[in-house]
Parts: sequence; C-alpha cells; structure tokens
Amino acid sequence: MTENKNRKIRVGIIGATGYAGAELVRILQGHPAAEIVWYGSKSYIEKEYASVYRNFFQVVKDICKGDDLQELADQVDVIFTATPQGFLASVISEEILRKAKVVDLSADFRLKDVAVYEKWYGIEHKAPQFIGEAVYGLCEINRKEIKGARLIANPGCYTTCSILTAYPLVKEGLIDAKSLIIDAKSGTSGAGRGAKLPNLFCEVNENIKAYGVASHRHTPEIEEQLGYAAGREILLNFTPHLVPMNRGILVTAYADLTPEGLDAARVRDAYEKYYGEEQFIRLLPSGECPETKWVEGSNFVDIGFVIDERTNRIIMMGALDNLVKGAAGQAVQNMNLLFGLQENTGLMMMPCFP
Amino acid sequence: MTENKNRKIRVGIIGATGYAGAELVRILQGHPAAEIVWYGSKSYIEKEYASVYRNFFQVVKDICKGDDLQELADQVDVIFTATPQGFLASVISEEILRKAKVVDLSADFRLKDVAVYEKWYGIEHKAPQFIGEAVYGLCEINRKEIKGARLIANPGCYTTCSILTAYPLVKEGLIDAKSLIIDAKSGTSGAGRGAKLPNLFCEVNENIKAYGVASHRHTPEIEEQLGYAAGREILLNFTPHLVPMNRGILVTAYADLTPEGLDAARVRDAYEKYYGEEQFIRLLPSGECPETKWVEGSNFVDIGFVIDERTNRIIMMGALDNLVKGAAGQAVQNMNLLFGLQENTGLMMMPCFP
Amino acid sequence: MTENKNRKIRVGIIGATGYAGAELVRILQGHPAAEIVWYGSKSYIEKEYASVYRNFFQVVKDICKGDDLQELADQVDVIFTATPQGFLASVISEEILRKAKVVDLSADFRLKDVAVYEKWYGIEHKAPQFIGEAVYGLCEINRKEIKGARLIANPGCYTTCSILTAYPLVKEGLIDAKSLIIDAKSGTSGAGRGAKLPNLFCEVNENIKAYGVASHRHTPEIEEQLGYAAGREILLNFTPHLVPMNRGILVTAYADLTPEGLDAARVRDAYEKYYGEEQFIRLLPSGECPETKWVEGSNFVDIGFVIDERTNRIIMMGALDNLVKGAAGQAVQNMNLLFGLQENTGLMMMPCFP
Amino acid sequence: MTENKNRKIRVGIIGATGYAGAELVRILQGHPAAEIVWYGSKSYIEKEYASVYRNFFQVVKDICKGDDLQELADQVDVIFTATPQGFLASVISEEILRKAKVVDLSADFRLKDVAVYEKWYGIEHKAPQFIGEAVYGLCEINRKEIKGARLIANPGCYTTCSILTAYPLVKEGLIDAKSLIIDAKSGTSGAGRGAKLPNLFCEVNENIKAYGVASHRHTPEIEEQLGYAAGREILLNFTPHLVPMNRGILVTAYADLTPEGLDAARVRDAYEKYYGEEQFIRLLPSGECPETKWVEGSNFVDIGFVIDERTNRIIMMGALDNLVKGAAGQAVQNMNLLFGLQENTGLMMMPCFP
Repeated sequence: MTENKNRKIRVGIIGATGYAGAELVRILQGHPAAEIVWYGSKSYIEKEYASVYRNFFQVVKDICKGDDLQELADQVDVIFTATPQGFLASVISEEILRKAKVVDLSADFRLKDVAVYEKWYGIEHKAPQFIGEAVYGLCEINRKEIKGARLIANPGCYTTCSILTAYPLVKEGLIDAKSLIIDAKSGTSGAGRGAKLPNLFCEVNENIKAYGVASHRHTPEIEEQLGYAAGREILLNFTPHLVPMNRGILVTAYADLTPEGLDAARVRDAYEKYYGEEQFIRLLPSGECPETKWVEGSNFVDIGFVIDERTNRIIMMGALDNLVKGAAGQAVQNMNLLFGLQENTGLMMMPCFP
Repeated sequence: MTENKNRKIRVGIIGATGYAGAELVRILQGHPAAEIVWYGSKSYIEKEYASVYRNFFQVVKDICKGDDLQELADQVDVIFTATPQGFLASVISEEILRKAKVVDLSADFRLKDVAVYEKWYGIEHKAPQFIGEAVYGLCEINRKEIKGARLIANPGCYTTCSILTAYPLVKEGLIDAKSLIIDAKSGTSGAGRGAKLPNLFCEVNENIKAYGVASHRHTPEIEEQLGYAAGREILLNFTPHLVPMNRGILVTAYADLTPEGLDAARVRDAYEKYYGEEQFIRLLPSGECPETKWVEGSNFVDIGFVIDERTNRIIMMGALDNLVKGAAGQAVQNMNLLFGLQENTGLMMMPCFP
Repeated sequence: MTENKNRKIRVGIIGATGYAGAELVRILQGHPAAEIVWYGSKSYIEKEYASVYRNFFQVVKDICKGDDLQELADQVDVIFTATPQGFLASVISEEILRKAKVVDLSADFRLKDVAVYEKWYGIEHKAPQFIGEAVYGLCEINRKEIKGARLIANPGCYTTCSILTAYPLVKEGLIDAKSLIIDAKSGTSGAGRGAKLPNLFCEVNENIKAYGVASHRHTPEIEEQLGYAAGREILLNFTPHLVPMNRGILVTAYADLTPEGLDAARVRDAYEKYYGEEQFIRLLPSGECPETKWVEGSNFVDIGFVIDERTNRIIMMGALDNLVKGAAGQAVQNMNLLFGLQENTGLMMMPCFP
Repeated sequence: MTENKNRKIRVGIIGATGYAGAELVRILQGHPAAEIVWYGSKSYIEKEYASVYRNFFQVVKDICKGDDLQELADQVDVIFTATPQGFLASVISEEILRKAKVVDLSADFRLKDVAVYEKWYGIEHKAPQFIGEAVYGLCEINRKEIKGARLIANPGCYTTCSILTAYPLVKEGLIDAKSLIIDAKSGTSGAGRGAKLPNLFCEVNENIKAYGVASHRHTPEIEEQLGYAAGREILLNFTPHLVPMNRGILVTAYADLTPEGLDAARVRDAYEKYYGEEQFIRLLPSGECPETKWVEGSNFVDIGFVIDERTNRIIMMGALDNLVKGAAGQAVQNMNLLFGLQENTGLMMMPCFP
C-alpha cells in the first residue's frame, strides 16, 4: 500500500504478544496517525489480544492473527517484526518490501558482516541479499538514511544505550575507543516473556548477576556502530547484568581520555554538538548521574559523565527504558521518519515517577 | 479568571512536589486543553521544578512558587491542592472561590459532618462554612453535581477504590451493607514522599503489614458515601496494608448476599446498570480477578467478583492506580467536568505493562 | 532403621529440589542431630545438588537421587516428602511406615474426609487406609499426638498461619466461627519453582492480585482444623493474594466477637492461655501489627489483634515465613517431636532483617 | 577484662541500632562463645532493643544503653563500633585498648595515611597515634596480624568484595593493576537506616543509578590494600551503583592481562593458591558468574572470572552479603581470630534462598 495523507498509517505487528510487541501496542494506541490492523502472534492465534495483555481490556478488541508476512504486506503500510532471531530473514522478500516498509526489532539485519552475524548468533542467515539495503535505525545518528529506507534494523536495547552514551566522544576522538569498557544493567523485561526458570520472580528478585560475559550478542553490534564513528575497527568489553526491576537499562562506560588532561567543558561541547538539538537525548548537568526511573515509560535517553583526573578516565553513563527507546519507542520513531511525520509524533509520553 | 474557549485552562498546583502533585504534572503535560502556570511547593520554593522531579528535565522549565492561594487565584482558572489535611480549610475564602475553581486532593471537604472530620483527623476544621457546597468528586457517581460546583473534594485513593467496588451492590440492596469488610492493599507511593523511617526501601521491601487497623481516616469517608447509596448509616471494617510496590491499590471486599442465593447474573446486571457506560470502569469477565499492574499509570478501575455459595458471601475486588484514578487522574477528570470538556480528555493513557 | 541416641537421625528428602525441599536442606544443615543422606529429585537425578541450589556450593557435595520411597526407607530414619499432591498417597505402604517415619509436606494426609480431599484436589486418593493414623502436624496444637505418630501430615503454609491466628479465640468461643473471613497475602515462593508465565518476575513484580477466590485448596484444611476447635463444622471465606516478595505470609482475619463488647484483655488472656508457653508463637503487644519481614527466615509466628468496638469485630493478624514455619521449619519441628529431641533443636535461626 | 576459657566472650556494640549493628546482633545470637552485654545506641537510649528491631522480639530483652566507650570497656572483652566516621577516633584511648579489644566497622583506622583519610572523608582525624597499630581486618589476607592486634579496622563492604575479587591476580602480577576498573552494585541496606529521601522505597524501587562516581570513599581503601599486593601504588576506578534489593554486593572488575594470552588455568591456579583453603571464599567453576542471592545471609564470598581473548582482558566477579562478609560477619570472624576461637565459629549460616 502507498502512503496517503488523508488516512492513518496501517500497521501490522508480528510478535505482538511479546513484551516489545505489547509496548508497540501501548505506544501506537496513543499515536494520532497510525492504527494497528494486525496483531500477529505465534502462540495466541485466534485469541483476543486483550486476553493476553489485560491492560488493553476494552481498548483493543482485536483477535490475534498469525505471522504470514506475505498476506500481511498486502494489508498494511508498515510491518513491525518483534520476533526471534532468524525469523524475518527466513521470510523476507523483494515483494514484501515493495508493498510495505519493514521495521525489524530482531537482530537479523543489524550487522553488515554476515559472518559476524552467523558466528555470534549461531544460525545461518537466510536473506543476506537484503543486508546491504537495511538501514541501522538509530534515529539520532542515521536519520537521513532512515527516511529513504524500506527495511530498518531497529537497534538492540543495550546497543542503543551503549552507542548513544559513547558516540560523540568516539566520533570526536576524545576517548581511546579500544579502551572502552561497557558495564550495563538491565531490567528483566529484556529477557522476554518466555516461561524460563531463571526469569521467575524468586530467582530474579533480591539478586543481581552478570551474564553473557564476553559473549553477549549485542557486543558486535556496538562494536560495528562505534567503529563507524571511530573510523576504524573497535573491540571492546560489554558486560550485561540482570537487575530486579521490570524496565530500564543503565550503561556505565569507561574509557581513557585522549589526549590526557581533557576537561569537562570540551567533553560537554562534544555531546552538545551531536545531541544539542535532539529532543529524546537529555544531557544532564555536570557530574549528575542518570537514573533509569527518571526515563521509565518514555522515549528519553539521559546521559551524564564524570571525569576522573586521577586516572585520566571518563565515566560515561546513559539510561533509557529498554522497551521504549530500547525497542518499541525507537521503532515508532523510525516509522515516523519513514512516513514523513514529525519525529516525536506519539512519543511524548512523560516518564512515570514513581 | 473566567473560562475562555479560545485558550487553555490555566492551572495552579499547590503541593506540586509531592507524589500526587507530580502525577498531576505528568498527566497535565499530556492534556491538550490545560497548562500549568503555577508549581506551588513549600520545601522547594525558587528551585527548578525539574530538579525535584528529574523525569521532567527539559520538559518543565518552571521554578517552584509558594502556596499563596490568594495570589494564585488571580492567575488561574483552577487550583489543585495536593496538600496536608487542614491546609486548604485554613486558607480558603469566598473570594478565592469566586475567582477560581478548587479541586482539593486533601480530606478537608470530603466529610459532611464536621464532627466526624475533627474526630478522625484530630484537627479543628477552619472553614466549615464551605463544607456544604463542596461536591464529593467521585465522577462516576456525582457527575451532575460536579459540573456546577466551585469546590471539589477529590476522593481518597483507598476510598475511590472501595466505593466503586461495592457501590452498585449497596445501591441495589444486593448485599447487607453492615456486613461489609474491606481489606485493602496499597503500593508505597500512597505514603507520600516524606523522609520517614517506615518508608525506607529496606523497611518496605520484602515485607507486608496491615496498619491503621480500625482507625484509618478513609473509613468514615467510605462509610458516608456508601451510606448515601444504602440510604442509611453504615459502619464497616476497613483495613489497609502496605505492599512492596510503587503504585496500585487492590481492594478485596466481603459481604453477605441479600437475599440468600443471589446468582452471578443478577450481580453482574447491577454492575452493568451503573458502570455499563463508564469508560474508566472495566468490569472483568465472570470470576476474573483484577490485578493492579493491569491498570498502572492509567485512569482505569478494574472490578471483578466471585460468589461463594457455600458461605453466601460475595467477594468483590477492585484495582486502580492510587496516583491516577486514586488522586491526580480523578482530579483532572473533575477538572474536565468543571470546564465542560469531554470527560476523558487527556486521560486515555494506556496502562504500562510490565 | 531404629533410633539411636549415639548417632544422628538419618534423613531422606523427596522433592529436595523444590523451594520447600531446599529450605529443609538449609535448616537441616544447621541441625546438630540430623544428617541428610538422600537428596531426592525428579528432574535433577544424577546432578550435583549444589548445582541446582548454588547457595550450597562447597557445602553439600551430594548427587541427586530419585524418588524410590521403598529403597529410601531402608536407609533412613525419617522421610520428608515435599512433593506434588497425590505422590505420597500413590507410593506409601505399611512396610515403609514400619521402617521410617514420614513427614509429608503435601496435602495427601491432611484431610480426614477422603471425599473432601477428592473434591478440592480433583484426584483420587490412592491410600485412604492411612488417613486415619496420620497426625496433623501443627505442633503447637497436636504436640502429644505427633510424638507417637508414624505419618505426619505437615500443614500448608496458609493453613498454619490462618489456624494459629484464630485458634484460641475459636477454641474459647470468643468469636463467631461462621463469621470468619480470612484474607491472606503470600510471597511468591509459595507458588513453587515451576517455570510458569504467571510466576515470571515481570508478571509478579509491581503487582498484587487475589487468586483461587472461594476455591483455594487450603480452605477445607482450615475449616477442618478450626472445626475441631469450635466443636462443630465451620464454613469460612479464605482469599489468598500474591505479593511481590519472596517469602512471608500475612493473614488478616475478621470475625464477630461473641458476646458483644468483649474487651482486649479477655482476648489476650485467651491467646496467652494457649500460646503463653510457646517459643515459636510471639504474641505482639496490644494493637501492634505483625510484619512478615520480622519473621523472615525464622520459625516464628507473630500474632496481633485489634478490636473494633464500632462494628463489634476483631481483626486478628498473623505473620510467618511460608518456607519455614509454613513448611520446612514446621516439618523439622515435627521431626524433633517424633525423635524425642528438644522441640526447638536446629530451629532457633534469628529472623533476617533487612 | 581478660579472656577466660570458661566463660563466654563479653561483647559490647556501639551503634547497635544501625543495620550493621543489628546484623551483629543476629549473628552473635547464634554464636556459642559470645554474649552481648551492651547494646549501645545514640537515638534509642533507654528503649528496648527489640522494640527497634522487632525480629528480636522475645529473644533480646535488653535495653539500649549509650555510647560511653570508657564505661563500656570496663564491662566487656570486645567492643564493636558500628558508628559514623570520626566517632571512634574521637573517643579511643590507650586505656580503652588495654581493657578491651576494639573491632571498628567505621573507616577511622582503615587508611594508614592520615592525609588520605582527611581528604576523602573531609574530617580531621582525632587519634592518628593509633593508626599505626590498627590491623586491617581482611581475615583471609591479614589473618596472622589480626590475631595479635588490639584494634581492628574492619574493612568496608565494597572494599572487601573488590579486594578479594582481584587480590590473587594483583599479587601474582597476572593483571596490570593500573588498568583496574571496578564496577560495583550494592543493595540498599548499605545506605544505612537514616530517614533520607533518596533511600525511600519509591525512590529506590524500579531504579538503578551510579553514585559517588570517581569520589566514593572506599576507593583509597581498595587502592591501598591492592597496592600492598602489587608492591606499588595503584590508582584505579571504582564506581558504586544502588540496586533495588536489600542486601548484596556484586563487583565486576576489569583488567588487562599481563602477559598477553594468559589462559584460564593459570588464573585459576592463582585463585586456588590464595583461596584454596579458605572456607568463606568459594571459587566458582570456570565461566560461572556469581549471584548475590546465592550468598545472602551468609559469610561467603563467591568469585568467578571470564577471560576475553579478543580484548586480552579478564572480567573478575565477586559477590557477598554487604551486612555479613561486608560488615558484621567479618567483624565476628575478626573477633574469633582475636580470641583464639575457630575462625568460622558462629558463622556457618547457610545462604537463604529464595
């Protein structure tokens, strides 16, 4: 279907019954220019969507449909795929892309090097021919390319937070990119809605742990994107932690300052240069630390930093809501760009506190 | 000031730096027909409002002002007072009420009997002359009276949930009102933002307790309102509990069915009769139990019930967000009614899950 | 095997890899007169027990065994079965009971009326011939009978808390037993370690709900035991709620006082009469409300009450740790009684706060 | 007083009503060779100790006394000071130390360089003459010196976890000590029981943040102790984070391996060399990540590591309970050493899960 100024954008969601899918529904319910016409699910076909997510009781009346992308493409303007790795690559086609824009919340088209994808994800990529045209949907950085794309690779939650936190300093060469260490902390919704023992309340509550140390799949995605900023290949350390809370990602990133003795004003200038006009990135006053709670439910990313003169290192910190700016919010931001809407349309939800 | 169709309603908030005040700010930021022009505070005068609530960083630019109602009334169309008991009664005047509508989130004008107020709150009522005209702002029940009022007594959080859960059955005489037992559970934001030992994280977390047993101040408020429904005085038991979560109130109410052997269909009819057209009250399917999480951040109240034929009792359950339908959301709903707006204006925030 | 003063009691646990089983292990590790020689499991046979519960790393070196009760009975003095309903009834035999004492943490032998069991649990009872001799292991009430038993039906967690909270007043006829309403709140460990969607962190956290309303299986157990105290059959309401915390049960129980106008001193006397000498039951000072956190990790039950003269009702409150006094702790208390040990042996763990 | 094999060690606690003080009480209640005779407090003098900490109801009958160290020293064998910085230094004297051993849980005698103390703590040190003889009470490392000491500087919670996690590799020169970055996460009990807004339930819950970035007072303590291990001065980065849980510290430490290409076996050998015989340090199997929940309530420290060959860095992880091994447990371990008891006496509490 083609866009039409006089009607709403028709949206289909595959994977609507996962947490990210449900967050798409929440956001799009408040979007003035879009309407969901397809709630795709694998496990709940033929069931009322609102019986799966009771928050939408009496608001969403639709029944869950399946995941036939071919059929879906005929009915909508844009398809969001909030699906497991490998799904979209296995079904995408030129025909689909001619009919509808696709915003993929999985990792299938995030990495340009198919070998890197296959190594870190352990599966064969079934549609490498579309990797080239896919645009990495980090709106604040790739805005221009996104506008003309057909296929958007929506960034991962850890990735969005990590990249946005470090990007200006890498880009400006103010930190030694190979010294980068990213220690990330995530709420549990990032683990999805699968019924697995490690995600049970009693296993997560009153507990914190690292996981996927030196092996988490978001690592190469961060390395690739920051590598573009640095102008050369980067290897870095990324360590995710599971925190007993529902939502939120906090990134604490460490790097050596280059040259030595760089002052806070210069660092702030770099952040201002790239983010000064950005509505969704809030650069905190000097020395202030972001907190995930202050962005919960919103599309904001809060960023702060502290320079340690004793060690000549900078500690950069970023906070976002993993389901919003880290998933569904950014996906809608991409949709807005794709369809020529004002970028913040339907995305000005205030953070909910407490 | 008088209302004007061509401009936004000018809003002043006294107590804007409490949790309920901050929730008013969150909701009104998304309200298309209102603008906050006065962020009143006692503790943070002259400070940036957004430095007190970092969620509003770069969104709210205002500086906190004081609590001079007289001065405020000259500048706004409506005043919300989210203040301690006794404050509004000590400063309200005919002059203020002639200039601006007042929606009071405290208990000062909720009870018609000043003696009852003074007994349960332990303070002298300084403005009993306005008790008569104050309208109890439970929108679904007193909608008509609210529209023409100058002074709205916005109901308490426990009260809203308790009354709405039991109202139709009391009104229709399907339960023995004097058998009513209300066991309520609340998130911790209901305790306010005061720095008190019992509200510390480590004291609340991993803990549940009852408090204010047989003495909580919301008791006479529930009794008065349900008494109007019953057509006679009611005494009941109300027991609040503190739950380790930020938001949400769940009410579990028990009563004897009258006459014996009443069936679920008849009960459902009663609920439908009063709430069938209500947008913010969602009557759950038969036997389903409401959960606070499904209404979090929204103005919804979810209600369900189960009949126990063995004991001839009904268990009624209601869930709402104490800061929204239990405070700020209902206050805005009252404002909408006072100013002739569509009742749900600015209040269709979807519940946030998870 | 027969008891021998010169050696430790040999213990076998079936269901050692559930939460209650693991709590048995924790408690018995600190027990001076018992040693676990069999860690039975269904899902983890041949695996190191400490790989399933990392808290026991380098402390417990044993490998999980199966659930062959016949074989186990030859090797131990006492068997704890922390197993699903129906398991013990399907394997118990006279031969086993001749060889080893059995403390059953499931419901198989708690109800004397097999028809009631089959109705509430929905399964056929495979060993009704042992129901008669089974002793209901609520130590404070059935101490004498427990000492001579072979088969102990260890009470449910909700049940222990509910019965102990109301028992003296029912026994003394100070409340109208048929007016009893028990509103109970439980931490999530009571739901077990099964990987089910409703028990995921994101579904439980920041949420509270009732469940099993008018149909929870602990209801007939409470009714039967309190019925013995009352000297006649009782029907009551019992409503469990799921609270976002790991451990703890709080019971809030409501009843009409008989005769009217009963004072607090008389009620306290009744509690003192039955619990005055009990080490694990702590009667709180007048008007004080128990909190689950104050008993966490311990075998204590804290009890308090408030009389509402306005409604002539009493609100009784009890708090315990569902995994200790509500399961494993009470099971060990029963073991101590069975083997002639001091009743509190190995059970004086202090509550852990915060 | 002098030690006597035939009676219990007499213990006095100053600061018994803080969280660390209460944990000392919990642990010492289970200690077979010690008895508390003085519950010192500043805010609760003359009040029942058990009215401040209800977990000790009917267990501890004592009344809170004041903080007169002089008087206390006449009555006890050992004094624990769980007091604010500066307190002990302002009252300690040769006379006190001649009468009783002192185990100080504050920072007053942890740093050997008084200038460093005064810079990081911002207060004058009132008793520098005792700094020299004070022994840093990290038992696994300074066991021998502790045994003969009069004054023990009990390490900080973050410090214990950080040092123990990195010590063997620093000592053996397997990592470049100046590349050390320590990212630490703590439960909220570490913030104490003071009624402060940032520690309220609603401010901490569903939130994570860094704080004290590049300025936290435990930094110089870690640097000093690891500097001894390295044989030269070390500067490093230490970043604490506040996690929504009651107890637990997790340290994630990053360092460059020296020489490059070091394998996991060599690293494990180093850990085994120092900790192979240590009962309270549990070295996890290869690649396994420690979780705070697995040590909760116990004196264990769990340590694991992962080598990232891509970046030639090692990620070391350590987990402990901040109130036990990070405070009261270690203090008792020090007491055991001071009085010639078996080191683990009274400290074999199993971790509580869930």
